[in-house]
Amino acid sequence: MYVIMVYDVGVERVVKVLKTGRKYLTHVQNSLLEGELSPAQYKRLKFEVSRIIDDTHDTVMFYTLRSEEFLHKERLGIATKEPGEFL
Amino acid sequence: MYVIMVYDVGVERVVKVLKTGRKYLTHVQNSLLEGELSPAQYKRLKFEVSRIIDDTHDTVMFYTLRSEEFLHKERLGIATKEPGEFL
Repeated sequence: MYVIMVYDVGVERVVKVLKTGRKYLTHVQNSLLEGELSPAQYKRLKFEVSRIIDDTHDTVMFYTLRSEEFLHKERLGIATKEPGEFL
Repeated sequence: MYVIMVYDVGVERVVKVLKTGRKYLTHVQNSLLEGELSPAQYKRLKFEVSRIIDDTHDTVMFYTLRSEEFLHKERLGIATKEPGEFL
């Protein structure tokens, strides 16, 4: 399955959420990761993220598709940033 | 077509990009909008956004699918925020 993850979390939890997301997905833009996962990996990712975030302040959206082939991507602006700039 | 828009733009352009995005899409989370658009609307949205952003600093990712039915959504944390908090 193909997974897109978009997070909006308190600044004190950004590094942890990003680090966890990166264990499973590719970081494509600030607060945005995507990649191909097995259902078991997706379940683990959600579990790990849910343990980090503050349910009363943070929100993380996951979009999933059966296959990346259904998805088209188009980007405006710069293609990449330096890793440090994401934080 | 179904469109997901994720933006990462300089703070001085956030309001303009969000306002433009909202003309076409629903704001679901900080920096994240989605909705059903015609190809013509999608083209206009990209054109308007491209006129606002700074190509050397900002980046906006658009994911498109033929239909929302291919897309599954799952959210961790809070479901909504007060409108003011998005800025």
